[in-house]
Amino acid sequence: MKAQIITIGDELLIGQTVDTNSAWIGAELSKLGFDVCRRISIHDRREDILNTLAEVSGKSDIVLITGGLGPTSDDITKQTLCEFFSTKLVTSREVLDMIEEMYKQRNWPMNENNRRQAEVPETCRVLKNAAGTAPGMWFEKDKTIFVSMPGVPQEMKYIMYENVIPELKKRFSSQLIIHKNIMTYGIGESSLAEILKGFEEALPEEIKLAYLPAYGIIKLRLTATGPDKQLLENLLQQNVRKLYKIIPELIYGEDEELFEAAVGRLLKERGTTVCTAESCTGGKIASMLTSIPGSSVYYKGSVIAYDNSVKKNVLGVSAGTLEKHGAVSRETVEQMAVGARKLLKADYSLATSGIAGPDGGTEEKPVGTVWIAVSSETGTRALRLRYGTDRVTNINRFSVAALHLLWKEISGR
Amino acid sequence: MKAQIITIGDELLIGQTVDTNSAWIGAELSKLGFDVCRRISIHDRREDILNTLAEVSGKSDIVLITGGLGPTSDDITKQTLCEFFSTKLVTSREVLDMIEEMYKQRNWPMNENNRRQAEVPETCRVLKNAAGTAPGMWFEKDKTIFVSMPGVPQEMKYIMYENVIPELKKRFSSQLIIHKNIMTYGIGESSLAEILKGFEEALPEEIKLAYLPAYGIIKLRLTATGPDKQLLENLLQQNVRKLYKIIPELIYGEDEELFEAAVGRLLKERGTTVCTAESCTGGKIASMLTSIPGSSVYYKGSVIAYDNSVKKNVLGVSAGTLEKHGAVSRETVEQMAVGARKLLKADYSLATSGIAGPDGGTEEKPVGTVWIAVSSETGTRALRLRYGTDRVTNINRFSVAALHLLWKEISGR
Repeated sequence: MKAQIITIGDELLIGQTVDTNSAWIGAELSKLGFDVCRRISIHDRREDILNTLAEVSGKSDIVLITGGLGPTSDDITKQTLCEFFSTKLVTSREVLDMIEEMYKQRNWPMNENNRRQAEVPETCRVLKNAAGTAPGMWFEKDKTIFVSMPGVPQEMKYIMYENVIPELKKRFSSQLIIHKNIMTYGIGESSLAEILKGFEEALPEEIKLAYLPAYGIIKLRLTATGPDKQLLENLLQQNVRKLYKIIPELIYGEDEELFEAAVGRLLKERGTTVCTAESCTGGKIASMLTSIPGSSVYYKGSVIAYDNSVKKNVLGVSAGTLEKHGAVSRETVEQMAVGARKLLKADYSLATSGIAGPDGGTEEKPVGTVWIAVSSETGTRALRLRYGTDRVTNINRFSVAALHLLWKEISGR
Repeated sequence: MKAQIITIGDELLIGQTVDTNSAWIGAELSKLGFDVCRRISIHDRREDILNTLAEVSGKSDIVLITGGLGPTSDDITKQTLCEFFSTKLVTSREVLDMIEEMYKQRNWPMNENNRRQAEVPETCRVLKNAAGTAPGMWFEKDKTIFVSMPGVPQEMKYIMYENVIPELKKRFSSQLIIHKNIMTYGIGESSLAEILKGFEEALPEEIKLAYLPAYGIIKLRLTATGPDKQLLENLLQQNVRKLYKIIPELIYGEDEELFEAAVGRLLKERGTTVCTAESCTGGKIASMLTSIPGSSVYYKGSVIAYDNSVKKNVLGVSAGTLEKHGAVSRETVEQMAVGARKLLKADYSLATSGIAGPDGGTEEKPVGTVWIAVSSETGTRALRLRYGTDRVTNINRFSVAALHLLWKEISGR
């Protein structure tokens, strides 16, 4: 069961719009068991559309197309579909009634452009779009189903949910694809791959493993494919259990869980709170933690001590420490953590001080160096790490590393 | 000058990752004057890669490929490139030295997988990647240039900026394309388009105008195309001057300047400093301000007062105010701003308190409501705004709106 996705629109090619439609469609089709083997974005141009349709025709079971169905003159998809499927545009009474009703209800005046939205290729099956005025269209040719939908996300989704997904479920129901993600941190991709070499080789043929890294976090994705849902779920469960045995200390969560969400989950479960004291990360950790809905239950706040005067006057880092060891030191970051916990009255505190770059490094403390500390009523622990030279990457890596230290402290792992 | 983009990776097809790489590459290639005529995403599978390469070969001047270059076994791009270009993998001494040096500096152990990253197809030109371990690769076949890059965005961008863009500029230079961006804030896209209708209609045929909106900021991109550099630059300059006359109060910067950079520039010019006191934005403003290199000169720090106890105990918001007016009120946000300025000893302070959502709204203060205050020695000003219901969008819009208020205060506009 193969599927291809075509998205039409200049804005997708010149980078003005990120193509979230095809990501969404890809996820939905995967859930139905389709192998989405290709996604193509092309211009709103007659010959490009015709060439692409000819290319994909007969090479997969379904082709989902979005975009190019608006009323303005640069949208030529409908005419081109007529040409490809050797038919002509006719006015659909049903669609016209719907559009007229919609305009009446909203008290909008109808114009010629709106009426043209009701024109559809004569041989297509019209798919109702209650979220807008451009209907979806269903064609079949060369044993391939073609569905054309508008590019506005909520309209496309309406047509998918109401028409396309139910119909595809009816027609194609043999092969299933199920995914399971295991979120890890603490080791590089290649080292992890070495540890998991035996595991990967022992995977049954129904299951595949992929590594998806970002800022030190590696998502392990297990994909199970086959006709028997129960079998696939059992196989996934067995292999997830295996992973927990091989790398227990590296797994912090499952599915798409972010590190900041995993930390929040632990804090909530235990009824404890956290605060932060950030220097080089400049609010990034606070921003990550508070991006999670409901974080106000466990997150107290932060002192961003960018300037040394704030480290001294607000967090109580001693002038002697700053002078003797500098701002990027074990002593400073430990005092920041202790000071923040006292001031903001949280169970845990997390502090960072480092050199994000691009300048400010020395031989002893090069750009990319960071000290991280975590403090709780049982004591304070600090850690020195070293990353690269890119400022934004460093801020992200420092922040994830700090969340990891906090996670270890809370989980006791 | 035609270009095609191929992104490789299962995660792109099943919708786990939105393909931001090809949007970014599309934008960069458009700036260079390429017509990006097609973007294709395919699986990490030998035959899919070979078929797609064969299909695109000879049909455009350049083909940029990302993804599939990691060290793990699901990454087979490199071997497949060898097959397509009829060559074999050899170890690049240069790349191996770089990887060894990187691992030595960070005190990481090297393994066989890391060493394999230094293997490259014999006939390619190796493109240095200082942001990671997988190098870029440059091939030429059938009058088409193929460039293969890793899928990690910062690595791909490094290789593009350092190697690919300069080389493409050298090779393809008949038609010049010059861009000039004018950064605006304070009005919606369609209202701005209405104001600029006459301006746009009067543009000479060499110049096109595009609107690129993000979180309330609208980038106006003027693109000049033609063979005569001097003429294009003059035309751009004339039309930029026109814009400054039509919408002087909306323009905060030029080129790609971020709002946080524009604010930083003003502070630096005037030798003044700023601090923040964030509630609902949870460190986002601090994180934006400190993402700018050199921000430590003018940014003192922040108190993130997520919990009301922090607003009271650290920032000095009165218990009576919180009780009578609530945390999301003019009175609270003004006291936060005043308290932060005193505590963190900065010339300006910026405070936010609002309801980011998805929950926590009331009829009187619905989700999306925010109070913003700016304080300086001349006084304190506050502003209430209202946005939508999406948490992440709200945090971003609140933060940009707050930076705008600060920018108006500093610039006196």
